[in-house]
Amino acid sequence: MRIARVAFRNSARYAIVEDDRVRFLAEPPFDGIKPTQERVPLAEVKMLAPTECMNYWGVGFNYPAHLHQAAETSGQDIPKLPRPWLKGVGSLIGPDEPIIIPPEAGAVHYEGELVVVIKKKARRVTPDEAKLCILGYTCGNDVSEKKEWEREHTFWRAKGTDTFGPAGPGIETDLNPERETLTVRLNGKVMDTTNISAMIHKPAFLVSYMSTFTTLYPGDLILTGASGVTQAMKPGDVVEVEVSGIGVLRNPVEAEKMARK
Amino acid sequence: MRIARVAFRNSARYAIVEDDRVRFLAEPPFDGIKPTQERVPLAEVKMLAPTECMNYWGVGFNYPAHLHQAAETSGQDIPKLPRPWLKGVGSLIGPDEPIIIPPEAGAVHYEGELVVVIKKKARRVTPDEAKLCILGYTCGNDVSEKKEWEREHTFWRAKGTDTFGPAGPGIETDLNPERETLTVRLNGKVMDTTNISAMIHKPAFLVSYMSTFTTLYPGDLILTGASGVTQAMKPGDVVEVEVSGIGVLRNPVEAEKMARK
Repeated sequence: MRIARVAFRNSARYAIVEDDRVRFLAEPPFDGIKPTQERVPLAEVKMLAPTECMNYWGVGFNYPAHLHQAAETSGQDIPKLPRPWLKGVGSLIGPDEPIIIPPEAGAVHYEGELVVVIKKKARRVTPDEAKLCILGYTCGNDVSEKKEWEREHTFWRAKGTDTFGPAGPGIETDLNPERETLTVRLNGKVMDTTNISAMIHKPAFLVSYMSTFTTLYPGDLILTGASGVTQAMKPGDVVEVEVSGIGVLRNPVEAEKMARK
Repeated sequence: MRIARVAFRNSARYAIVEDDRVRFLAEPPFDGIKPTQERVPLAEVKMLAPTECMNYWGVGFNYPAHLHQAAETSGQDIPKLPRPWLKGVGSLIGPDEPIIIPPEAGAVHYEGELVVVIKKKARRVTPDEAKLCILGYTCGNDVSEKKEWEREHTFWRAKGTDTFGPAGPGIETDLNPERETLTVRLNGKVMDTTNISAMIHKPAFLVSYMSTFTTLYPGDLILTGASGVTQAMKPGDVVEVEVSGIGVLRNPVEAEKMARK
């Protein structure tokens, strides 16, 4: 099943995507899927970021092909266990919304990733229990300033700057990510293709490990790490993150217009 | 004026504290203070964390007397500009709620701090404009695991573990923090007293600088840094953070009861 958060007539609602229509849900999908009989054409809604999360998590050092670059740009040793970080909720944007690069930023890279969407409140869950706490998966872009900001350790602006966290287009609930492929395109050119099975710390482990210390809430998003060697984007570019079985998250890149200082 | 978020008859509401009574507000205090005529005795309500924030920010290296310890426990050089971090929203607790130490943690320190409460959405505001974006101030405790977790860089569990972010008891809207004193007591013994005027990066600068990159939202909280040399707490302890002109934030310390693994 494909669930999406959509804008329709000035309100944001959850819906099931059924071919060229969406069918609205009676309530958010975290406490059971409750479809209504109200359907509208897909063309009449706008896809939004898949949830309004309380916490927007990122995880790094999670594909063998990205370890070297991550160590170099962050100035960190390669850790054995995940070291998640929080992205400010202002970084979360939806499909087709622009990634806006502030003039203070140096090299701003795409990082195409699989995103875990949390269904149930999770604290100290085992990996097996964690599977039941996952609603599904979407695509995400953990946009990162790599010239200097990643070396500030907390990533508060390296990865938390407004618009630096596109996610979408919808939440696929029946996906086994181990069988899927993650592809990143810049201006239509394939920059990286990875079998998600190469992921080091799998979603169920990530949820279990993180929940040892911090409660994961319904709707929380976890970016599960980039693969390959990422590259900088510039205004005018279009970046696409595709997970087979989910779809394409496409975002244009713009320079921040400084109306004032 | 003293504003508080309180629990009364199973609901959480904002109120003005008037001596031994609270007077409820018609709506949250971020879009103007709208008092109702409904008053109840202070003894009949429970003080909650001062807001439900979208982002819970911390800032470090912000008092001369804390710089050396912060550099040592985090393994970082002393930075010239703030390097904020986000605490998971599950870390936010109110007055009298227990700080719960997981068995995996080593030395867990108190960090008594002044907390800025954001009133208006702020992005790229000047320090002068930032003053108008601050609703007021409260007390906070940026509880931190300093044995090893601070060296994980992002502080996701060092400072973001559930219950590691007490704040309260209320929001003082007419305070000039430059004239106030920050005091931390452990089991009644004064551990540190600081003139808040010693703060390196002042609230208006912090809000302005952070807003250059990330939107600050109504109700967001910013812990502005600890002073002095902090020490570890143990189960059974009671920690108090007092800012003169605001009040005392008191929290007991407990070991996590492991009902399951």
